[in-house]
Amino acid sequence: MVDYFKARIFLEPNEVPKEWVNIVPDLPTPMTPLVNPMDGKPAPPEMAFAIFPKECVLQEVSQEETIPIPNKVREILVSTYRPTPLHRALGLEKELGIEGDDIKIFYKNESVSPTGSHKPNTAIAQAYYAKKDGLEELVTETGAGQWGSGLAYGCNLFDIKCTVYMVRASFIQKPGRKILMRSYDAEVHASPSNLTESGKAFIAKDPDHPGSLGIAISEALEHSLRSDKIRYSLGSVVNFVLLHQTIIGQEAKLQLEKVGIKNPDVVIGCMGGGSNFAGLMIPFAKDKLNGINSEVEIIGVEPRACPSVCKGEYRWDFGDTSMKGPIVKMHTLGHTFIPSPIHAGGLRYHGIAPIVSILYNNKVISAEMHHQNEAIGAGLQFAKAEGILPAPETTHAIKEAIDQALKAKEEKEKKVILFNFSGHGFFDLLAYKNYMTGDLENYELPTEEIQRALASEEMPKIDESQF
Amino acid sequence: MVDYFKARIFLEPNEVPKEWVNIVPDLPTPMTPLVNPMDGKPAPPEMAFAIFPKECVLQEVSQEETIPIPNKVREILVSTYRPTPLHRALGLEKELGIEGDDIKIFYKNESVSPTGSHKPNTAIAQAYYAKKDGLEELVTETGAGQWGSGLAYGCNLFDIKCTVYMVRASFIQKPGRKILMRSYDAEVHASPSNLTESGKAFIAKDPDHPGSLGIAISEALEHSLRSDKIRYSLGSVVNFVLLHQTIIGQEAKLQLEKVGIKNPDVVIGCMGGGSNFAGLMIPFAKDKLNGINSEVEIIGVEPRACPSVCKGEYRWDFGDTSMKGPIVKMHTLGHTFIPSPIHAGGLRYHGIAPIVSILYNNKVISAEMHHQNEAIGAGLQFAKAEGILPAPETTHAIKEAIDQALKAKEEKEKKVILFNFSGHGFFDLLAYKNYMTGDLENYELPTEEIQRALASEEMPKIDESQF
Repeated sequence: MVDYFKARIFLEPNEVPKEWVNIVPDLPTPMTPLVNPMDGKPAPPEMAFAIFPKECVLQEVSQEETIPIPNKVREILVSTYRPTPLHRALGLEKELGIEGDDIKIFYKNESVSPTGSHKPNTAIAQAYYAKKDGLEELVTETGAGQWGSGLAYGCNLFDIKCTVYMVRASFIQKPGRKILMRSYDAEVHASPSNLTESGKAFIAKDPDHPGSLGIAISEALEHSLRSDKIRYSLGSVVNFVLLHQTIIGQEAKLQLEKVGIKNPDVVIGCMGGGSNFAGLMIPFAKDKLNGINSEVEIIGVEPRACPSVCKGEYRWDFGDTSMKGPIVKMHTLGHTFIPSPIHAGGLRYHGIAPIVSILYNNKVISAEMHHQNEAIGAGLQFAKAEGILPAPETTHAIKEAIDQALKAKEEKEKKVILFNFSGHGFFDLLAYKNYMTGDLENYELPTEEIQRALASEEMPKIDESQF
Repeated sequence: MVDYFKARIFLEPNEVPKEWVNIVPDLPTPMTPLVNPMDGKPAPPEMAFAIFPKECVLQEVSQEETIPIPNKVREILVSTYRPTPLHRALGLEKELGIEGDDIKIFYKNESVSPTGSHKPNTAIAQAYYAKKDGLEELVTETGAGQWGSGLAYGCNLFDIKCTVYMVRASFIQKPGRKILMRSYDAEVHASPSNLTESGKAFIAKDPDHPGSLGIAISEALEHSLRSDKIRYSLGSVVNFVLLHQTIIGQEAKLQLEKVGIKNPDVVIGCMGGGSNFAGLMIPFAKDKLNGINSEVEIIGVEPRACPSVCKGEYRWDFGDTSMKGPIVKMHTLGHTFIPSPIHAGGLRYHGIAPIVSILYNNKVISAEMHHQNEAIGAGLQFAKAEGILPAPETTHAIKEAIDQALKAKEEKEKKVILFNFSGHGFFDLLAYKNYMTGDLENYELPTEEIQRALASEEMPKIDESQF
């Protein structure tokens, strides 16, 4: 038996951070702007104000080191689920044959939020700012539904209408999340839908189109332009969302200090748009850029079916499939690329956060890929050893943490490994069922498919010398 | 907006209780024994030892005021999910038009356990005792699956095999819980099954028999007799299970004291077998029996489709449908009664804990009934106001808490209301979907049906004068 008393590290409610940590001023190469698709030039603030709540736009371009968390937002976080626990994975260590304290695995448990993932950390903030702006509705896209249910929860707190375009494949496969969103009074549509021009174009090609995050973003963006009382809300990729998630890494640092650990050796998170990974690692990456614990390895983990960073190209691309929104510079598989239907719906995005791209280009962080069978297998191993069933997205981080621990064991190294347990898998049980019955497919993305998507005529040509 | 900082009351890890609270020595009329169906006399200890782990049998008949929680059990509780939060339902109060501090609604949130309900509180203890006895397997029944997944989790912690007979209707309707149990390596069978004589008899009558908790108990009991390394495990009804749950009420008392509340006015829980209700209320009922806060109202809530206490008879009856187990004295609808298929599967039990029966007979507690539409409607109102989606079982307690609060508001009374939030509804979303689409049926149990079940020839005749 393991010593369970060492296994959960608590914080006091008043230790929940009072500010978000901004990494933009520390980036080794300058932050790239959002670009207006009309003229290929940096989007003027008016354009961004027409899409997002005002305060979010200001945070997007802020050069401040930290940004205060509004009292009301912090109050809600503290009264509902923060601070979240940091667990020492003693059960998993035992399962891996790791004894003693040379190798320690920790995970930050974001699954304890009301909707079961890290997403409310930014949803609550965005809904708060929307209310402040006098808005009446936020509209968004969702894949597996973690973000959609997070935003539905946030909007409901502030009596704002929430509309969600949900990727059709998930809409059908994961009815639970849809019902959860509706229980918070959100309006949920399968995407592509007949409610937008973008959606209609895809339905015309294929009435049963499975959809993608890129298409759903196009529909949500189009919907947001219906009225001046509606804005678009994004659950990842952009700077201000990553900023709101830094509460995760700040708490984790404090919790590690409480058990005498000044710095972890490895920090791991799964990457879709990049927000849960960034939320955990930004405080550590900021330290690293400032010469503190510069040895820390920071690893983002992608599915082999959609490896935007590991196999994509760093270039200008649309964030959405129908080219409705701004152009961003990021690692991308091309906005026309439709990923295979892996269960980790939140990782099925063709691009990645620009901040994550810049950190990767400058070797501040690295990236790994795993197949969904290996990931879900690691998730099941984790569930048996630690008791909590992870979301398919999260299993990718777990697989990497296990690999890192086993490598350290073989090489007889001392190592502190920290990963983000971004969400539970209670709405994704089909993935586990299929794994257990041997019916889970692995998808390896062929290089030709990436080349084809990147060579599409629709890929934007941006002349940076014009900025 | 409400003041969210008042809304969650924390405890320190070292404030998790070190002992369980036993109400048996305080009961106003003596505890009734388990009776041997063979001779109609109190079951000898050997009989109980053949069914349950040894320490559990000793706890079942203990007259001690308190019983120490084994260190290992407490360590696991503290390292995984305890103390659980106590929430002030400020969102719900606002929704009900309650202002100020005259009426306060609190709920104890047991949904934060790894399997999402209060069940691990006893599952961990039972698995620990089973391991201590050198057992290799625990076998049990489950309805909606809260208990089955709780025990699967507990057994997995101690490397004991877990076998679960799951009521067939739920096995089909709630595939999620089945996959969760299997992810902890449990073996799960639809009940009635072809694996036991009891099961075969029901399948012979109807190959698609929907099953019931009473039938599943019979199968599990029969299975437990296969080997001396197997014992039966029960998730409610008997004294030692209620004892293990008293950790809930003890924590809640301490948490209320932290916000200056010495005693609540109303304590509420939903009742199936009675364990979550008893776990919350026993510390308060024990006080009441000892002249402390004797005004407290303690209310157990049943579904109208299965009102064992409100409409059943207090008499000797079998705990299981096939008359394999001991006979107990309790409020019962008759062991042959098959309840309507309400979504609150955990409340579909023909009887109730003997301790709860005795407290009810002596007017220490009272009971109420609600229809499932009203309950699920209250659950949805709660989800919107508080953010957490309740299990269908839990919604019955919520409905009663809302009614009590509205009554106090109308009568301009001061009132502190406390209820047990026994579990979340992430595995029970169909109930909410059907409610929202108007497809949820109400079932009122006809008196003739109860009379028929209670008049069955199979009802045991016990002569207490022979004891």
